[in-house]
Amino acid sequence: MTNQPDDQLRVRRLPDRARYELQAVKAILAEGTLAHVGTIRDGLPIVIPMFYAVDGNDLLLHGAPAAGVLRRAAEQIEICATVTIVDGLVLARSAFHHSMNYRSVVVIGVAESVEDPAAKASALDLFADKIVPGRQAELRPTTEKEIRGTSVLRLSLSRSSAKVRTGPPVDDEEDYDFDVWAGVVPVRTTFGEPVPDERLKDGIELPISIEHLFDS
Amino acid sequence: MTNQPDDQLRVRRLPDRARYELQAVKAILAEGTLAHVGTIRDGLPIVIPMFYAVDGNDLLLHGAPAAGVLRRAAEQIEICATVTIVDGLVLARSAFHHSMNYRSVVVIGVAESVEDPAAKASALDLFADKIVPGRQAELRPTTEKEIRGTSVLRLSLSRSSAKVRTGPPVDDEEDYDFDVWAGVVPVRTTFGEPVPDERLKDGIELPISIEHLFDS
Repeated sequence: MTNQPDDQLRVRRLPDRARYELQAVKAILAEGTLAHVGTIRDGLPIVIPMFYAVDGNDLLLHGAPAAGVLRRAAEQIEICATVTIVDGLVLARSAFHHSMNYRSVVVIGVAESVEDPAAKASALDLFADKIVPGRQAELRPTTEKEIRGTSVLRLSLSRSSAKVRTGPPVDDEEDYDFDVWAGVVPVRTTFGEPVPDERLKDGIELPISIEHLFDS
Repeated sequence: MTNQPDDQLRVRRLPDRARYELQAVKAILAEGTLAHVGTIRDGLPIVIPMFYAVDGNDLLLHGAPAAGVLRRAAEQIEICATVTIVDGLVLARSAFHHSMNYRSVVVIGVAESVEDPAAKASALDLFADKIVPGRQAELRPTTEKEIRGTSVLRLSLSRSSAKVRTGPPVDDEEDYDFDVWAGVVPVRTTFGEPVPDERLKDGIELPISIEHLFDS
């Protein structure tokens, strides 16, 4: 007997699983809005919401150069970025089995500070397009001063995992007879009527990029 | 000259600010859904989404006893729980000034493991009522076995802070002439049509607690 078949299986299977996971991770990141980024400050954990975008197989994190989390993260320490989307309230027949349907991604790793001005400018474009797809094309180019005033961290998605809960409540068998409504209430993120800036110039219509937000 | 007036001012002002902040913190926690909880695992930060409820001036965190974050947090180490609500996409005239309107709360401290069975049962009630206000009254009481199968952490709100961004984009003065739409797109969390469990008994109507979710 030899371990070879198992090893081969492992070699064949792990890349598949990794690809699948990276696809799942990227699908969740495409839909999420904020990352909650954990770093260690004076030996203690601190979690801050940060804006992010995805660039290929990397997560880009965005902030002001003065932001503590960015300064600490740039010191080549490991950080953790978690993105969660709530999909539903799971209403079971007992308090114990109440839950949420959700999709979450955890990315860990040492973040790299993006220093190249062109890469920082392109990151700002990605952030604008993450907020509203197509937005960047409507804006003037980023200036050198703005690039200097921006900090961007790059965190590889190579150490990331996705976790998903879907479906109905799972109750104890004896509780299915209980006379109480059970099921799932879907949770959605929706957009309200756009509020034009008070200083918006006359005659400027809502661009198609923003109109597309309301398509789905 | 003496520092006394300043000191008095400080004594008078800080409690006001603290009260205000605690009110602001609790208002945000009442509306939020998930906490992103940071702990340290093998010296590195890890951030996990967790369900929470508020009990007086404490945050209650809920999970399975096996959950790593709960086990680590119960070891009398400091944790950080962050709750963020996104209120709007802030669309400026430059990529640089794009932002989000949001409300966030950061709570830090050493969490206490809730061990008293009655306190754990009442925490489960609070969690059910946090998911759907009034839900707990519709459910059977929690069993002793369920109480044993539940871990609850209590984290004081005494070391908490709120951070809020509201209002329109703030652009560079020279950009207000630029021909691009700018303003805020409100972001809301809404509920979809409730999906009854496939095993729901015939004749059970949607309870008023769930109908109330659609009031606003």
